[in-house]
Amino acid sequence: MSEPSVASYPVDDTNRVKRLYKRAHYDQATVHALLDSGTLCHVSYVIDGQPYCTPTLYWREGTKLYWHGSSASRMLRNLSEGQPACLTVTHLDSLVLARSAFHHSADYRSVMAFGHARLIEDAPEKARALTMMVDRLFPGRTESLRPTTDQEVKATSVVMMEIEKASAKIRAAGVIDDEEDYALPVYAERIPVRTVLGAPEPDGRLLPGVARPAPLAGFSAGRRLDEALTEAYAASYPAG
Amino acid sequence: MSEPSVASYPVDDTNRVKRLYKRAHYDQATVHALLDSGTLCHVSYVIDGQPYCTPTLYWREGTKLYWHGSSASRMLRNLSEGQPACLTVTHLDSLVLARSAFHHSADYRSVMAFGHARLIEDAPEKARALTMMVDRLFPGRTESLRPTTDQEVKATSVVMMEIEKASAKIRAAGVIDDEEDYALPVYAERIPVRTVLGAPEPDGRLLPGVARPAPLAGFSAGRRLDEALTEAYAASYPAG
Repeated sequence: MSEPSVASYPVDDTNRVKRLYKRAHYDQATVHALLDSGTLCHVSYVIDGQPYCTPTLYWREGTKLYWHGSSASRMLRNLSEGQPACLTVTHLDSLVLARSAFHHSADYRSVMAFGHARLIEDAPEKARALTMMVDRLFPGRTESLRPTTDQEVKATSVVMMEIEKASAKIRAAGVIDDEEDYALPVYAERIPVRTVLGAPEPDGRLLPGVARPAPLAGFSAGRRLDEALTEAYAASYPAG
Repeated sequence: MSEPSVASYPVDDTNRVKRLYKRAHYDQATVHALLDSGTLCHVSYVIDGQPYCTPTLYWREGTKLYWHGSSASRMLRNLSEGQPACLTVTHLDSLVLARSAFHHSADYRSVMAFGHARLIEDAPEKARALTMMVDRLFPGRTESLRPTTDQEVKATSVVMMEIEKASAKIRAAGVIDDEEDYALPVYAERIPVRTVLGAPEPDGRLLPGVARPAPLAGFSAGRRLDEALTEAYAASYPAG
């Protein structure tokens, strides 16, 4: 999907960042880039007044988000109008030790996306979404696998949410202290945090001669996960 | 707080793990160990029917969880009975490439904790909680800092939630395929994922002679964040 960099999600009281508003971004380019650099999200929804915060794998197509339905499935079934939901993706980038307790902080990048979650009931639509779930992570992988069976599609719940509103919040500032506190003999530092890949572990029961496919080269030991995911997404879905 | 290993959170329809129930744990030892190995959580709550999924820093004391209130503050103020909330912590441990799309998965460790969130209004109670927020991460750090001012305490929102129910879910299985699929000439692997610390970056404006305090030694380059956090928690709060 072509997206001019000026495209932005609408802002209202739901998604307007109230605290530290200078960290906020609403443009699609920033929001989508952050979404495409992750694979684990947390999604919030309400069942009988009880909020749930469920970790799951997600993926993006244009302004739509998809995720595994899991325990939300029963609630979502037959609710064609959808249920309000919020899907959040967060990268922790550092721990910040300042000279005062008050300014201890963390660098991070996060996106909160709001919309109405709907269970995908149509089998072909669901099968297409599941292909994207795999190929979004590992370019071209689906065509190297045996076909997914109808029973497998049936056994998998996929939820779709059109992003109605979204906000990205980014702190990348390290140590920030009150000016007078810089005169204190207190140690302060930024401790970088990053999520990285280890050395791939080939399955022990591979058939002789079965080698690692070339498109997996980006998933190499020591690589940052967010970079590998961004690259994989762009390889599989170059139009965004 | 002393906790016999048999202590468990109650299980009902809210926190019972429905899918893949073999991955579920309800004992306090497992739930608390996972909580103490993290610092970033996602918390869900409802404002006017809209669920929010907010990333924030959290910490545990016994069976209580605390976190920064941020946008929930207005909702929580003056609601002495509390608001239903769900706080979730997730570690992503791998990406799993199986021989079928259906068995693509991820290894992970997560905790969902349910309860009622209350804003801490009492200033001394809040100041005590904020000390724990810092010292839980960096043992003994608060006493090396200038005292927090009344204004800083006032400007900080802290939310407390007694854990009423909780469940931990752990997948640590790598590749699992249908037995007949092992005969396919398809590549399969587990790609480990871990969140690690980079080399600490001392602030550029440290006074001469101000050295890195010894209790920060556990936060060293290449160390796993979850291990450093677990160790720091145990050093500051050895009784759990």
